[in-house]
Amino acid sequence: MSRIAYVNGRYLPAREANVNVEDRGYQFADGVYEVCEVRSGKLVDAPRHLARLQRSLRELRITQPMPLTALEVVLHETVRRNRVDYGLVYLQITRGVARRDHAFPQAAVRPSVVVTAKNLSYDKNQETAKKGIAVITTPENRWPRVDIKSVSLLPNVLAKQAARERGANEAWFVDTDGFVTEGSSSNAWIVTADGRVVTRMVDNHILSGITRAVLLEVIEALQLRLEERPFTVAEAQAAAEAFVTSASQLVMPVVKIDERTVGDGKPGSVSQRLREEFHRFAHLS
Amino acid sequence: MSRIAYVNGRYLPAREANVNVEDRGYQFADGVYEVCEVRSGKLVDAPRHLARLQRSLRELRITQPMPLTALEVVLHETVRRNRVDYGLVYLQITRGVARRDHAFPQAAVRPSVVVTAKNLSYDKNQETAKKGIAVITTPENRWPRVDIKSVSLLPNVLAKQAARERGANEAWFVDTDGFVTEGSSSNAWIVTADGRVVTRMVDNHILSGITRAVLLEVIEALQLRLEERPFTVAEAQAAAEAFVTSASQLVMPVVKIDERTVGDGKPGSVSQRLREEFHRFAHLS
Repeated sequence: MSRIAYVNGRYLPAREANVNVEDRGYQFADGVYEVCEVRSGKLVDAPRHLARLQRSLRELRITQPMPLTALEVVLHETVRRNRVDYGLVYLQITRGVARRDHAFPQAAVRPSVVVTAKNLSYDKNQETAKKGIAVITTPENRWPRVDIKSVSLLPNVLAKQAARERGANEAWFVDTDGFVTEGSSSNAWIVTADGRVVTRMVDNHILSGITRAVLLEVIEALQLRLEERPFTVAEAQAAAEAFVTSASQLVMPVVKIDERTVGDGKPGSVSQRLREEFHRFAHLS
Repeated sequence: MSRIAYVNGRYLPAREANVNVEDRGYQFADGVYEVCEVRSGKLVDAPRHLARLQRSLRELRITQPMPLTALEVVLHETVRRNRVDYGLVYLQITRGVARRDHAFPQAAVRPSVVVTAKNLSYDKNQETAKKGIAVITTPENRWPRVDIKSVSLLPNVLAKQAARERGANEAWFVDTDGFVTEGSSSNAWIVTADGRVVTRMVDNHILSGITRAVLLEVIEALQLRLEERPFTVAEAQAAAEAFVTSASQLVMPVVKIDERTVGDGKPGSVSQRLREEFHRFAHLS
């Protein structure tokens, strides 16, 4: 847990890091967030995360509480105060505190801003990547605006928990046409037998992942073939490789999908190479 | 706003009524709630609200934090401390505070319990009911488990705001088959030209409203004909009467649906009678 959290202008010890019970984030899931990787105490791809945050705010018409440059200062300061070398920084902005009413507050309300940061074990992450993870699949049951990175995450919570209970690390949502949309907290990818890297195109049914976007640049630089299109569970299970991307997992090989082994059951060479190359392309600030 | 709120065992002034920023209700919408009408300082249909709360908790596998009888004591005490005569009491329970991770916390975590209460103007509610309200319609875009009364309410927030911006009080969600599911914070009803009262049957696509359930008893006692089935927007617009039900609005006549006048544009006689009779059937405690 974050030892020091930024809450509406103040840096507070975790136990005092509180928001009001009538914060609309608490009563209505009326807020957005970003999770940014921290490496050597620096932010990975902060400008892209902040640009996406700005888009999420705009889509929900939540007032941007401060300039992005000021937000980046708060991210850095929270990382510094928590002495995070490798880990994550979390930023949440909600519509603010108001008397409970579904519609937006009619008087101007100041949005709530919360930032936390925590250390993670990079070695543990690397060890997991060496073995690869298992994923399960589950019917897509989220609303059709998951392109907005909102805290309305209850379906994601239940999917991730189902994965854990079946010995897997991630759950892939599958739409009514049988196509994988994305994971509960990651984007989904496969590599075909002839080396094409496939991931779903960006629309309202997936979040436009920052790690995903950077990886597209890596793929281009390595002159790999890319296809942005949906794929089915069966295609993924029969693929040469599969992996997921997210700020916390980076490029994480998938070796099992719903009890079916992918490839030879070990992380594939393309996935491993993309994982290794990723940080040459990521932006540190 | 509630002047005194119950938060995890303590009655606190509103400004000190806080929860931790890592409460899963704030970061994941991982919590449930109930809103109960207060009349003459008493709770309306508390046993039904608490039974539904218990079901919501069970569906999400959130530990019930205390016996229902103890929760009812907290509801009463919060009403008393806020000197609510006519108004609402709000109860929220989340999975608790834990280091951020989508899956359920692996160590046992104490659920968070928050209760607030506020006075409302009964006269204002009555005045609105005399004129009736306008509703708009909007495509159903919520997840398929709205039978769970969770705080994952972002689509409801956006729908209610859209209604307000179009001069209406409520938005009805319409499924892909063209049938009305329910309102953003109410159940939807119509009365046919030959006096049948129609409302959608209870399934995963609507919340099983307490006011709805009590009204079914009123309808039976008054020997009105009832049909529990879906209806389309066109059928509602052409109906003799329409209304919505909720703990805060009770039976509220609808006189306009998407710019089309319902009946003669005034609250219908069946709606008005049901509104008047409602409190003879509601349980006070």
